[in-house]
Amino acid sequence: MMEKVRLGIIGLGAQGGNYTRFISEGKVKNIVIGGFCDTDPDKRKAYTEKYPDIPFYDNYTDLLNSGNVDAIVTTVPHYLHPKIGIAALERNIHTLVEKPAGVYTKQVNELNAFAESKPELTFAVFFNQRTNPLYQKVKELIDDGEIGDIRRTNWIITAWWRPQGYYDQSEWRATWEGEGGGVLVNQAPHQLDLLQWIAGMPKKVYSVVKYGYQRDIAVEDDVTVVLDYGNGATGVFITATHDVLGTNRFEILGDKGKIIVDDSKKITIKRLHNPESEMSNTMSWADIKKLTGGGDMSQIYSEEVLEFKSVWGKQHIAILENFAGNILDGTELVAPGSDGIHGVALANAIHLSSWLGKEVELPIDEDVFLAELNKKIQEEKRALVEK
Amino acid sequence: MMEKVRLGIIGLGAQGGNYTRFISEGKVKNIVIGGFCDTDPDKRKAYTEKYPDIPFYDNYTDLLNSGNVDAIVTTVPHYLHPKIGIAALERNIHTLVEKPAGVYTKQVNELNAFAESKPELTFAVFFNQRTNPLYQKVKELIDDGEIGDIRRTNWIITAWWRPQGYYDQSEWRATWEGEGGGVLVNQAPHQLDLLQWIAGMPKKVYSVVKYGYQRDIAVEDDVTVVLDYGNGATGVFITATHDVLGTNRFEILGDKGKIIVDDSKKITIKRLHNPESEMSNTMSWADIKKLTGGGDMSQIYSEEVLEFKSVWGKQHIAILENFAGNILDGTELVAPGSDGIHGVALANAIHLSSWLGKEVELPIDEDVFLAELNKKIQEEKRALVEK
Repeated sequence: MMEKVRLGIIGLGAQGGNYTRFISEGKVKNIVIGGFCDTDPDKRKAYTEKYPDIPFYDNYTDLLNSGNVDAIVTTVPHYLHPKIGIAALERNIHTLVEKPAGVYTKQVNELNAFAESKPELTFAVFFNQRTNPLYQKVKELIDDGEIGDIRRTNWIITAWWRPQGYYDQSEWRATWEGEGGGVLVNQAPHQLDLLQWIAGMPKKVYSVVKYGYQRDIAVEDDVTVVLDYGNGATGVFITATHDVLGTNRFEILGDKGKIIVDDSKKITIKRLHNPESEMSNTMSWADIKKLTGGGDMSQIYSEEVLEFKSVWGKQHIAILENFAGNILDGTELVAPGSDGIHGVALANAIHLSSWLGKEVELPIDEDVFLAELNKKIQEEKRALVEK
Repeated sequence: MMEKVRLGIIGLGAQGGNYTRFISEGKVKNIVIGGFCDTDPDKRKAYTEKYPDIPFYDNYTDLLNSGNVDAIVTTVPHYLHPKIGIAALERNIHTLVEKPAGVYTKQVNELNAFAESKPELTFAVFFNQRTNPLYQKVKELIDDGEIGDIRRTNWIITAWWRPQGYYDQSEWRATWEGEGGGVLVNQAPHQLDLLQWIAGMPKKVYSVVKYGYQRDIAVEDDVTVVLDYGNGATGVFITATHDVLGTNRFEILGDKGKIIVDDSKKITIKRLHNPESEMSNTMSWADIKKLTGGGDMSQIYSEEVLEFKSVWGKQHIAILENFAGNILDGTELVAPGSDGIHGVALANAIHLSSWLGKEVELPIDEDVFLAELNKKIQEEKRALVEK
């Protein structure tokens, strides 16, 4: 049995660079870098100078065929994760795909189906925020029924400010062809995953999405979504990249209480002594008026506040270690690769609802979505030519 | 010229009783009670015993024809405000209608049109929350452009908890025939008015409305709305009567800052030193990362927090005094009667969107709405018969 996982890092942009640093600085248990891959000659120059002992490949097939890696992570443009993931799994190489697992569900389903045919391999998705103790705690509270059945979710996550200069960094950024979307595909996939991880997938969504609202981009920078969970519960999800005073507030109402998460730092848990439906049936209107008119609210609920420290970086290390742990000794995965579909399905449904101007059911029709996405890509190409 | 306005109070339920108390205890400047009206013999008994010097009428026409009142307030079921309002104005009696001004826009438009033919009379609507210094301050901040052009509004107002016993108090409550709706018609009209008073009317709305979701009622107890302001700005409005841990959080994002109102008690104002669009165009991605990665955010904005005390009761007195002031010396009205249409138009559009299952434009088709409402009333009657 291998002692340490030899990881191939495919794509040396910002995230690939971060993972390289974490691993080469010895911060990640049980992983060594087995090889690098990037198509950019400047990256080759920089990496071979800095890491002369680690092989560098200009294309991922060579890396996968080299025999130097037991596993890979795909820090490449979103469209490429499924293709590279399948190529790796085909060669019996464990695979960690960056989020989002792909741009459209059709390609992510193909990846998942292929991975299912290789159950002996480790297949994971880089949802680092799932390792955040704060969100783990929220999930635990919900799973344990601490606030009962969910009636409403409400997440305003506009703390994704990006200036125009961010979008102008490269040609492919914030384009349909290059990224397949904006804030839904690039920034908010974490929250889309956490939301469904914690509260489950909605059955229907309706969205109002603004494309190039406050930025000179083709894709979306402002998103409002209504989620219908199919059991009476409703949700709202709001995200944007133009709010420099970004809000990050996640509220979950259950029939036994409420959880409010502020700025990914603080959880306020309000636990009702009795289920709300019971209170509704037993309390008189006069009781209520007395209570809400300055009465002692501790008669009906208790409040707990939990504070958490920001742990950026540690999360990424935790995902890498968890991936290696699953390979080496079967440690349970925090984010199995097959889970990547949910966030993509949500993002696709949100886009599709806005394109069709109506509520859409999940799962959406993958072919309709792909046809609409391809239309956007064609329009974008025509617009570029006209420029 | 009259020294004090002789007010007729039509309807002696909870609000009529409150106004009677305020006025008879001398808390309301420039108003005396000229007459009472209620159809309930028990009310006649109680009021004539307690206020033997004030005439009591069993129907409003007698009160209006008595010569004993210069003005009236209509604390009656919502459907009746327009009819009684017109009857009063016809007799040159100043009119203050309770909120909502009516159940459907068609009847409120009729009232407004009639009032317009009597410009010499004072016509007002009882939006007491407009006298709340907190909301006046928010309006002033927006009107003065302190946070620039609005990009997003978000109001979660679920602090309207009502137990089943509240709904079971009387036959007409929470029925289509008796009230014409639930939380949108009975509890949330204040916020619907404040929202449009502060941020303007939307051009379109899409809603998900739950009827009898957590209560045994025919009308709505859970509402989620997406507002499209037609200029790129979007809003979300959420209200419910089943959240005993009610949230009241109103956030407005502008291109120069943000306002957050918590629990109708605290305003947090964040003012950007430069408009967001300018920051987007001048700041580099590296600058931003430095700033958001623990930098000094006071470089980009300043924060002010204003705390307010709860002022229930005072608000109602303020509206009554403002109404009398307009009659006596032309004091500007806080809530001119014609303003009553906006909240009703919003509530109607929200209902209609949920009934049709699609986004609707404002102003909505009044006849379509009324036909749908009458269908609900008929269904309700059939259901009652079947019981």
